[in-house]
Amino acid sequence: MLRPAAPARPYHHGDLPAALLDAALVILEQDGIGGLTLRALARRAGVSPMAPSHHFGDLTGVLSELAALGFRRFGADLGAAIEAAAASDRLDAMGEAYVAFATRQPALFQLMFRSERLDASRPALAQAMRQAGDMLSQAVGGPVASEGLPTLQQLARSVRAWSLVHGFAMLLIDGRLEPALAQLQGTDTARLLRAVLMVPDGGVEPEAG
Amino acid sequence: MLRPAAPARPYHHGDLPAALLDAALVILEQDGIGGLTLRALARRAGVSPMAPSHHFGDLTGVLSELAALGFRRFGADLGAAIEAAAASDRLDAMGEAYVAFATRQPALFQLMFRSERLDASRPALAQAMRQAGDMLSQAVGGPVASEGLPTLQQLARSVRAWSLVHGFAMLLIDGRLEPALAQLQGTDTARLLRAVLMVPDGGVEPEAG
Repeated sequence: MLRPAAPARPYHHGDLPAALLDAALVILEQDGIGGLTLRALARRAGVSPMAPSHHFGDLTGVLSELAALGFRRFGADLGAAIEAAAASDRLDAMGEAYVAFATRQPALFQLMFRSERLDASRPALAQAMRQAGDMLSQAVGGPVASEGLPTLQQLARSVRAWSLVHGFAMLLIDGRLEPALAQLQGTDTARLLRAVLMVPDGGVEPEAG
Repeated sequence: MLRPAAPARPYHHGDLPAALLDAALVILEQDGIGGLTLRALARRAGVSPMAPSHHFGDLTGVLSELAALGFRRFGADLGAAIEAAAASDRLDAMGEAYVAFATRQPALFQLMFRSERLDASRPALAQAMRQAGDMLSQAVGGPVASEGLPTLQQLARSVRAWSLVHGFAMLLIDGRLEPALAQLQGTDTARLLRAVLMVPDGGVEPEAG
């Protein structure tokens, strides 16, 4: 539905849009979002300068399809983590998978949450975002749509869990947690995250070790 | 220290760098970070095309000084909120001031947390970030530097509080909480935030109303 008619001179790849997205992802992670232009994309993919706009319209189209790809992978990662965890550990497992995804592909993760660069009305992006959101809801054990409108407290619980892991992931990949990690000699990011997920809100527990 | 020697032909403003930053802030909030170029800045400030680079070096210089301005205002807002609150309410007061700042100037807030666009080695930015960080630590009641290295749990508590409000602010200004807010007919953002800050981690409390 998103693809226009095939080009007059068929490309030798089986799936040119997929090949273009692969190339876009490499540029994004290597050079940052500022380095991803239609021209740079065509050059890296080894196709004509017009090919990216032919398939995706403009740069917003490329970024939106890239974000859609990101949300599909993100949803799959969250789903796999939830599936593998015991019911009581789902929230922590989701949190760890969330941060692991952001750490592995930081520029892609940042792009997924930069609405000003995306066209959320593109069907592929809208659908992928909705599916990733469903995985989050499942992890939080939030209300199901068929049960009617959630209460403020139910929704606050979901939003809280999401905000916590999203904030941690954003601060981490932006380098803002480096001072904290430097103070914890020998503690890696994963250990800090587990401690953050486990902190009781009431206060500080005496340290075990 | 950051300012180079005065231009040969003095500008009629009392403080040209400050006037340039004011103009940059207007462009940032109106047109987004993509609209802020040295050329657009000179045009809006009504100065010669060379004036911005003369004072700030390049676009990264402008963005870094703008982020420094943001962190100074942010730190002042957090400090005022903490000062006005009772000791037991400091964390919530900080959270509300944090999100209020992000909501009021979303593009500035996003810029402050886009390290890839900033030069954190600029003294003004480094200092403003450190001071805002001190305000956060004060709100969380975190360990003071003179007390030696914090324990993992102490640090996890600070990082958790920061992650929670930062994630909420980022999701909110990126429009990601709109579906949640739409489900809460009549509940505004401030009420959702208060509910998020108050949720006990153990589970969902029965709703009062």
